[in-house]
Amino acid sequence: MTETALANLQNLYRIFTVPEAPDSTLGSVDHAISENVADFLQKHIVALERSLEDIEKDFSTSKIPEEPSFVSAYTEFVKQKLVAQSVHTAAPGFVGHMTSALPYFMLPLSRIMTALNQNLVKVETSKAFTPMERQVLAMLHHLIYRQDDSFYEQWIHDSQHALGAFCSGGTIANATALWVARNQLCRPEGSFAGIAQEGLFKSLQHLNCNGLAILASQRAHYSLGKAVDLLGIGRDNLVLVDTDDDNRIDVDALREEYSKLCEKNIRPLALVGIAGTTETGHVDPLDELADFAAEVGCYFHVDAAWGGPTLFSRTHRHLLNGINRADSVTIDAHKQLYVPMGAGMVLFKDPHSLSAIEHHANYILRHGSKDLGSHTLEGSRPGKAMLVHAGLSIIGRKGYELLIDLGIEKALSFADLINTHPNFELITAPELNILTYRYNPAWLQEKMARLDKEQLQQINLLLDFITQEVQKRQREAGKTFVSRTRLRLARYHGEQISVFRSVLANPLTTTEILTAVLEEQCAIVKQTQVQSFIEKIKQIIV
Amino acid sequence: MTETALANLQNLYRIFTVPEAPDSTLGSVDHAISENVADFLQKHIVALERSLEDIEKDFSTSKIPEEPSFVSAYTEFVKQKLVAQSVHTAAPGFVGHMTSALPYFMLPLSRIMTALNQNLVKVETSKAFTPMERQVLAMLHHLIYRQDDSFYEQWIHDSQHALGAFCSGGTIANATALWVARNQLCRPEGSFAGIAQEGLFKSLQHLNCNGLAILASQRAHYSLGKAVDLLGIGRDNLVLVDTDDDNRIDVDALREEYSKLCEKNIRPLALVGIAGTTETGHVDPLDELADFAAEVGCYFHVDAAWGGPTLFSRTHRHLLNGINRADSVTIDAHKQLYVPMGAGMVLFKDPHSLSAIEHHANYILRHGSKDLGSHTLEGSRPGKAMLVHAGLSIIGRKGYELLIDLGIEKALSFADLINTHPNFELITAPELNILTYRYNPAWLQEKMARLDKEQLQQINLLLDFITQEVQKRQREAGKTFVSRTRLRLARYHGEQISVFRSVLANPLTTTEILTAVLEEQCAIVKQTQVQSFIEKIKQIIV
Repeated sequence: MTETALANLQNLYRIFTVPEAPDSTLGSVDHAISENVADFLQKHIVALERSLEDIEKDFSTSKIPEEPSFVSAYTEFVKQKLVAQSVHTAAPGFVGHMTSALPYFMLPLSRIMTALNQNLVKVETSKAFTPMERQVLAMLHHLIYRQDDSFYEQWIHDSQHALGAFCSGGTIANATALWVARNQLCRPEGSFAGIAQEGLFKSLQHLNCNGLAILASQRAHYSLGKAVDLLGIGRDNLVLVDTDDDNRIDVDALREEYSKLCEKNIRPLALVGIAGTTETGHVDPLDELADFAAEVGCYFHVDAAWGGPTLFSRTHRHLLNGINRADSVTIDAHKQLYVPMGAGMVLFKDPHSLSAIEHHANYILRHGSKDLGSHTLEGSRPGKAMLVHAGLSIIGRKGYELLIDLGIEKALSFADLINTHPNFELITAPELNILTYRYNPAWLQEKMARLDKEQLQQINLLLDFITQEVQKRQREAGKTFVSRTRLRLARYHGEQISVFRSVLANPLTTTEILTAVLEEQCAIVKQTQVQSFIEKIKQIIV
Repeated sequence: MTETALANLQNLYRIFTVPEAPDSTLGSVDHAISENVADFLQKHIVALERSLEDIEKDFSTSKIPEEPSFVSAYTEFVKQKLVAQSVHTAAPGFVGHMTSALPYFMLPLSRIMTALNQNLVKVETSKAFTPMERQVLAMLHHLIYRQDDSFYEQWIHDSQHALGAFCSGGTIANATALWVARNQLCRPEGSFAGIAQEGLFKSLQHLNCNGLAILASQRAHYSLGKAVDLLGIGRDNLVLVDTDDDNRIDVDALREEYSKLCEKNIRPLALVGIAGTTETGHVDPLDELADFAAEVGCYFHVDAAWGGPTLFSRTHRHLLNGINRADSVTIDAHKQLYVPMGAGMVLFKDPHSLSAIEHHANYILRHGSKDLGSHTLEGSRPGKAMLVHAGLSIIGRKGYELLIDLGIEKALSFADLINTHPNFELITAPELNILTYRYNPAWLQEKMARLDKEQLQQINLLLDFITQEVQKRQREAGKTFVSRTRLRLARYHGEQISVFRSVLANPLTTTEILTAVLEEQCAIVKQTQVQSFIEKIKQIIV
């Protein structure tokens, strides 16, 4: 071996054997985060936005570096180019998306998880993490389905069955539920070996129908669109039913859509209820949906990725009445269980359900083993369930109840702020902790009530420009943040308008901050370019 | 608010605002891991195995605790019940699965990633992480496809296109590739709107065929089975082609299977080559497969989840010749890129490919945005790409080359140890860094050469018992670990036998450790219960 080769080899061993010194660049960053993560983020994330095109220049090399580089140099790069230009998702004024501050204990526990580097696909690479994950699934199952002790004693650690599947997020959770629903509908029967074996084409021939369909409201999460594509059902057969004025599925419209499917000889494979729509936070009438699903004999899934933890709240859990009648329920842990990104779950009422997608392999996932990989869409997976276990254990039911109650109260008071403010129009009032609104001064709202459809359209278009421009500038300024979306509203003849969307899940968000959000928006409207839209509106109205 | 309620609220705020004190239980654990993770794992993971049934007792409550609990108490639980009973996947003697020691810098960098808690689905919640992930995909794309600079300048940050998709692991990566392949074959044409829109049933009617099929070798990863189920193709149409004596797909057999499909009017939607089979580490003849795919006009995917990083090695990369002709390639970062669990990628030769599965939504993933979520199966995702970026930057091409070369050399010397040992039979020699073998003393091997098929079967059955028992006892003793699988072997008339499987990816594994693995296995064979199988073998042979 040459001298260089030997040196390289020694350097290589060093990165696997010599810990970062506490006073090294990376050691100091690590220490700073351990000491006070909020402080670290506050100090290192640059508020003022650089354009994405500009940031891209720091990530433009497409070649893997030939030579190794020092950890210290790389850490400097991370600090200056990556951390500095990240989004401060934990900031109390960042009330636009579904990320929040995390409980402090999540960080050191995440490090333990990463250090252990278990692989949950198989007991041989996860041991205690396997029963721990199964326990987490049982706990969430109990939160939803409230079966008695003997039920859980029987199923919690029964390797041939599963109370749910742990996933990287809600999209995989929803896809898993609909995969199960599809495979149950197209199950083996007589000489037909089932869809898992024979595929969808032969399944439809066997069922003697022209297609399969999934029914959900217009407010359904985009993951359902991915799922129907993935599962071979096709987006044409994702039937998005109209909603009522409160963004809940219209059950009469659902009945109509169902009849239309029957006429076309298309079999509904699942009805999906939403417990907390992503855009407005509303909850479908789950009990009514369960009735309907039972009546027509259809699988019933509830997407409670956002709203599931509302079940912790004695005050608000009634909103989810009927969820225990669902065949399966999606809950995201990285949302209102306050776990870092990358943790979702789908729970199944019947411990036999997941058998519909069971799979085995010789070198892994042997029949009869306790390996979790045989019941999940994903293969190798990290031990993220540990962080859910930690949250449930440390925060407890009562702690989560407080978080949920606080969020809903905060949303209600934000709605009050908006309603009483002369410059804003509340678009959707919060049922959970999400609301939408837009800039629309009282004088204009008053006039709009008397405009015809065409004039309204013109005004709404200009208000859309304002919403888009304000949201963009507010984000770029980096002090506070709301997101935006587009909603169809009955009050504007079903026209689609742009709105600000606010999610009140961060316990550190205060009324003062929310007031500041509105003030900043008013200040942005006063900027020349935005004012020009106001001028145009005045021209139309006069 | 009552006094209790106020106290609860204050406690709740505390977990979001007050960092763990350095001298707290969790603070100390955190410090110990920062100081020296290897030492921490060594000290806290209990080597001797408790039975899973016993461990399950610590995770048997199905109710979410009503009351919050102290972080210190929970940390004690984690130390004693979870960490102690985990698997020491980083141990140099743990050579049975695809986990290894991690470079030290991965832990503090993981903490930065967790602290930032970015969500890669959308630029608004990830900013610099978006171009960073796109750069990582471009780097891996370049490693495989070696396009020129202008190619990457054009595509690296083009929001309407993608060089690949970052996933939670290889299973999702393979599913994504086959989803793309399926949707490309069933693309919109004339009045047919494509499978994403109309579904699989109408696609087959449109293509006028009886089914779709995927072709791969018998050694294909189980994720292909999941994918054909998920995508509606059916396991009957996953055609697993025979392999040659070196566990590579037999191209003549492939041609035959292809002809059979044509006769049945089933369209092959993809041919999958394997670059590093999970069980034996062999690489399919990729160039020949690319020829065949080109000849019959079929999508060509390569599952290089394990073997992809062999491309770093100037000595061994020739084994993967032809990989640059694949339409898509899966590479797992949590395998031979030495990144913590939960990171995989699929790269596409053509930046237009992922358009086949593109999707949009109003509140997120707007058309024309740079949001990554429109091109991935998953929705919300963590910034794991950062750790791949770190590995590529700090270790560099040359560092990874050393790791790959070391692993293959080590596998070759382990094979020598086995070959020269009087008690073992090498079953599959390593091509990359994986090999299989079993306990089978020289005297018995000699006799077996002269036995008839029936006698061989009896002996092999008993040897299987020995392999299974030794593997189990070795795992339980917790000193060293190999995995096991079952393989069909030509030398035993295609009979399936149990074998030990060893993966040599941990740079800290030494020849001394590998010698100890064999010694421990010999010692276990001497235990009474295992000896009884040897006695039975002797009875048959005599």
